[in-house]
Amino acid sequence: MTNPTAAMLVIGDEILSGRTRDANMHYLAGQLAEAGITLAEVRIVADERDVIVNSVRALSDAYDTVFTSGGIGPTHDDITADCMAAAFHQRIDVRDDARAILQAHYDKAGTDLNEARLRMARIPENAALIENPVSAAPGFIIENVHVMAGVPSVFKAMVASVLPTLTGGAPLISKTFTVHRGEGDIAGPLGALAQAYPGLSMGSYPFQRDGKYGANIVVRGQDAALLDEAMAKLGEAFA
Amino acid sequence: MTNPTAAMLVIGDEILSGRTRDANMHYLAGQLAEAGITLAEVRIVADERDVIVNSVRALSDAYDTVFTSGGIGPTHDDITADCMAAAFHQRIDVRDDARAILQAHYDKAGTDLNEARLRMARIPENAALIENPVSAAPGFIIENVHVMAGVPSVFKAMVASVLPTLTGGAPLISKTFTVHRGEGDIAGPLGALAQAYPGLSMGSYPFQRDGKYGANIVVRGQDAALLDEAMAKLGEAFA
Repeated sequence: MTNPTAAMLVIGDEILSGRTRDANMHYLAGQLAEAGITLAEVRIVADERDVIVNSVRALSDAYDTVFTSGGIGPTHDDITADCMAAAFHQRIDVRDDARAILQAHYDKAGTDLNEARLRMARIPENAALIENPVSAAPGFIIENVHVMAGVPSVFKAMVASVLPTLTGGAPLISKTFTVHRGEGDIAGPLGALAQAYPGLSMGSYPFQRDGKYGANIVVRGQDAALLDEAMAKLGEAFA
Repeated sequence: MTNPTAAMLVIGDEILSGRTRDANMHYLAGQLAEAGITLAEVRIVADERDVIVNSVRALSDAYDTVFTSGGIGPTHDDITADCMAAAFHQRIDVRDDARAILQAHYDKAGTDLNEARLRMARIPENAALIENPVSAAPGFIIENVHVMAGVPSVFKAMVASVLPTLTGGAPLISKTFTVHRGEGDIAGPLGALAQAYPGLSMGSYPFQRDGKYGANIVVRGQDAALLDEAMAKLGEAFA
């Protein structure tokens, strides 16, 4: 793969406790595939400072771009901004530009910009803000890390603000060939085909339906012509 | 938290590419919460040897128990068993006990135990097998790592085989208090309450519904009486 790589850090007790089923990761994965950026790793961690700091450092070192979701609201469990400042050795305080955005938003709504809300203007000193068209409180970019909200509607809006600024590769094309035979029957010829097309990735995802075994063979790659060729070979092999 | 900790390693290109939305992680999270085991971290990685080996080592060191899902089928992209053997410095080959299980299963079905299917009997030398009542091919336990299938029906069956063997703590009880006010309005008193109950965790999960802001305050802990007390205080604070 020559496409740029990305990782995601989900900061969310609510997913680890089984209360909520992830939505942001699945959304981001689809968006990145279209943009030609390879999502290579995702980590989901609890609202704990050391784990967040160490995880974001590791992912930032290992991949071209990192996205985080969660923990940038006004409540006591929102510690992401402070963790990012610690991870990248930057000072953090209420920043005038972020405060102005919040002030304008709450003035319009006739709501008080109290101490809790002002926490959302705490931004590491060298970070660039990410626009939040839904509820104003900005995300931010620190080094190669894009720090975004956990609320799905806000997360989506921030992804839309950020994605056009990233350099992607050719979009990842994905085609699926369904075989109504057990994986054990197709594994041999499939392995040979996978070796014959090193420029494509071929994954086999077995299923059981009405008591019968089958597998979805998913072929992924950037070269549409090569993909068509491989799909034709799959058709011949498993007709 | 005094409960034992767990982590999960999901081996799955299909989730990272956005093709499939995770189901196993969500299922395991719920089961562990009931069993009184704290799911502390999840990592989702691609079918790449080095990343799998390094991730499972890191998680095995950091947490009491690790669960993996995916990559133990018969096709070329199923490399989990070999990665586990490498991570824990064990030899791996087709094992007689696993082969016997597969032989019996395929004999009954009148299916050939070919070379590809035999790959599923490759088990690290010191691992204990995990029963697979759905499709026979076993998972295994190596050190503190439980290696299980990615197909959701098989994953669930293996979790059922494994969970009773693990020592959990008191089940995690979780209660939700919904406030129809913005997080910025409740953050102050909520932070004070969270400090007053260090034995409980209080998370705030904001939402927007019909254009109005609100938050679900989720209180989690093992002590039911303490939880009831905290819920009553929340009622007083946000009546």
